[in-house]
Amino acid sequence: MASICAMRVALIGFGTVGQSLVNVLHEKEAYLKKEYGLNIELVAVSDIMKGSVMDDDGLDKVELLKLVAETGSIGAYPKGVKGLSSVETIRRSEADVVIEVAWTNLETGEPGITHIKEALRSEKHVVTSNKGPIALAYKELMNLADENNVKLLYECTVMSGTPVISMASNGLAGNRVKAFKGILNGTTNYILTKMSEGESYGSALKEAQRLGYAEAEPSADVEGWDAVGKTVILANTLMSAGLSPNMVERKGITEVTSEDVENAEDNGGVIKLIAQAWMEEERVKAKVSPELIEFDDPLANVTGAMNALTLTTEGLGDVTIIGKGAGGVETAHGILSDLLAIHRANLG
Amino acid sequence: MASICAMRVALIGFGTVGQSLVNVLHEKEAYLKKEYGLNIELVAVSDIMKGSVMDDDGLDKVELLKLVAETGSIGAYPKGVKGLSSVETIRRSEADVVIEVAWTNLETGEPGITHIKEALRSEKHVVTSNKGPIALAYKELMNLADENNVKLLYECTVMSGTPVISMASNGLAGNRVKAFKGILNGTTNYILTKMSEGESYGSALKEAQRLGYAEAEPSADVEGWDAVGKTVILANTLMSAGLSPNMVERKGITEVTSEDVENAEDNGGVIKLIAQAWMEEERVKAKVSPELIEFDDPLANVTGAMNALTLTTEGLGDVTIIGKGAGGVETAHGILSDLLAIHRANLG
Repeated sequence: MASICAMRVALIGFGTVGQSLVNVLHEKEAYLKKEYGLNIELVAVSDIMKGSVMDDDGLDKVELLKLVAETGSIGAYPKGVKGLSSVETIRRSEADVVIEVAWTNLETGEPGITHIKEALRSEKHVVTSNKGPIALAYKELMNLADENNVKLLYECTVMSGTPVISMASNGLAGNRVKAFKGILNGTTNYILTKMSEGESYGSALKEAQRLGYAEAEPSADVEGWDAVGKTVILANTLMSAGLSPNMVERKGITEVTSEDVENAEDNGGVIKLIAQAWMEEERVKAKVSPELIEFDDPLANVTGAMNALTLTTEGLGDVTIIGKGAGGVETAHGILSDLLAIHRANLG
Repeated sequence: MASICAMRVALIGFGTVGQSLVNVLHEKEAYLKKEYGLNIELVAVSDIMKGSVMDDDGLDKVELLKLVAETGSIGAYPKGVKGLSSVETIRRSEADVVIEVAWTNLETGEPGITHIKEALRSEKHVVTSNKGPIALAYKELMNLADENNVKLLYECTVMSGTPVISMASNGLAGNRVKAFKGILNGTTNYILTKMSEGESYGSALKEAQRLGYAEAEPSADVEGWDAVGKTVILANTLMSAGLSPNMVERKGITEVTSEDVENAEDNGGVIKLIAQAWMEEERVKAKVSPELIEFDDPLANVTGAMNALTLTTEGLGDVTIIGKGAGGVETAHGILSDLLAIHRANLG
């Protein structure tokens, strides 16, 4: 590798994903320089709960991780500009890329949409794992990125770092996606797997909560809202569908009974919460619902918290990808792959 | 899309894959202009059996397909320079990209290696589906591409258009592949699937030959050589292994009996011809052999002529991709995705 390029990144959100990312970037510094000729410098971190620090000369990743682990805040970081809001950080930082990993709101998309617009308008590339902005404002944001000649990448909005978006837009470039069918929510797949092993819905949900897969208030998962958000992202980005979440037919798993699960086995399959989209009368239709998946379908073997997606393509028939759908380290690796895609595009 | 870029391609090899590609490029002309801003012009075709024609103003795709279908030759094409050898075509054509889809030789890599070297030295990008050159000379060819500031892409050498190479190098960028395990040969998977349904090896092989999956002389498939070639490609390109085919432990399926297949079921799995590589004492080891795959492994459900690959990665654990592993149209779509990757890199 002839020379080392520098990429300055600003991080908006310093929760599990943000901290995992900073740790991965630290651990892989030497590897990224050697293999990709890339030095990723962290120049700002801003989190509404944990504080904000900006230094265009670069922040010490280890020091930041230590501070937040010990004090829950980065307020005591010894250098840089402190206390800027996320929007001020995005505007004033000299970052090349803004990484938006703040919280997801599938009704308004905020504050993610505001963060991403500010970044694109100030001609900074954006990498995000935030489903809200991509589900609700994909076309507007992508146009804004094009106008400002920067990239907006969002691999981790669906199946965390498992590269479904890259597969569709790079690996399957030139090959239209006609339909898709997937298991996009790990919590419900874990619960349904436990039910197929004989547990009741209630005890499987409790176990999922104990393991941290499900929230105390589990409706975003079990009512299918999380899967709806991901379905809209896939339908809009891979099939130009122009859907909003309320246009997706939705049924969660709360009414699936142990009897349903047993009957499914007798009928040669298993019940899975399936997110799908297809063409009907030249329009894209989408649905999230419990469905019988036959034993010989690649999705039938996807158990526990794993995710999977089958794309039906024009030229290749069905292509299925199976991998993890959540997790800090997993998402951090997906964000890293997006950063490397920006680096690759810059190199030409 | 602001403007349309032109990409001139020369095609070396006009068999099933070459003809499928020309047909796909013809059918997708309007789509590629609209969605990708790209106009792919065919400026040369050279095939040792079917003749050779070169015209830097562009060849008529429909006319070429009609000629070869009707006469088995493109000799009667009404314009252009005729009768050049493949090497002369590569040297003299003004193509931006040479597409090498001539026949595979896994012992010498020729004539593919010569074609690819000529193309790279004349500063033309190369896209190939030819396993020989990539299995035997990957590093040398890639260095030559780097020296000449052009790209060498080879998605279709493994699992045809199913995007395993793109997934590993783009989607999983920054995430080391520690091991892999796959079903990379459709013919043997078809035979083993039929055996698991009760057929003998002999009758399953005959059926595979009747369907065109297996050759009259089937040893390249059933003795595991084809899978060895693909294993070397994956090990060398994804794990920097530096293997040659004779360093891969190899056992085909000719000694698998109906009894073995039955016993596998009793032991909770199915027998598959597995291509795998892993790290052992800081070196990459690789093997192709019939293995017991447990029913809950994603590879267990991969039946008939389908292929699949599980990559074990540092940051994401196992990622599995399942799709078709052969076919003219499928390979043509993989070549198209490589052409679009070159286009994307040119745009920056």
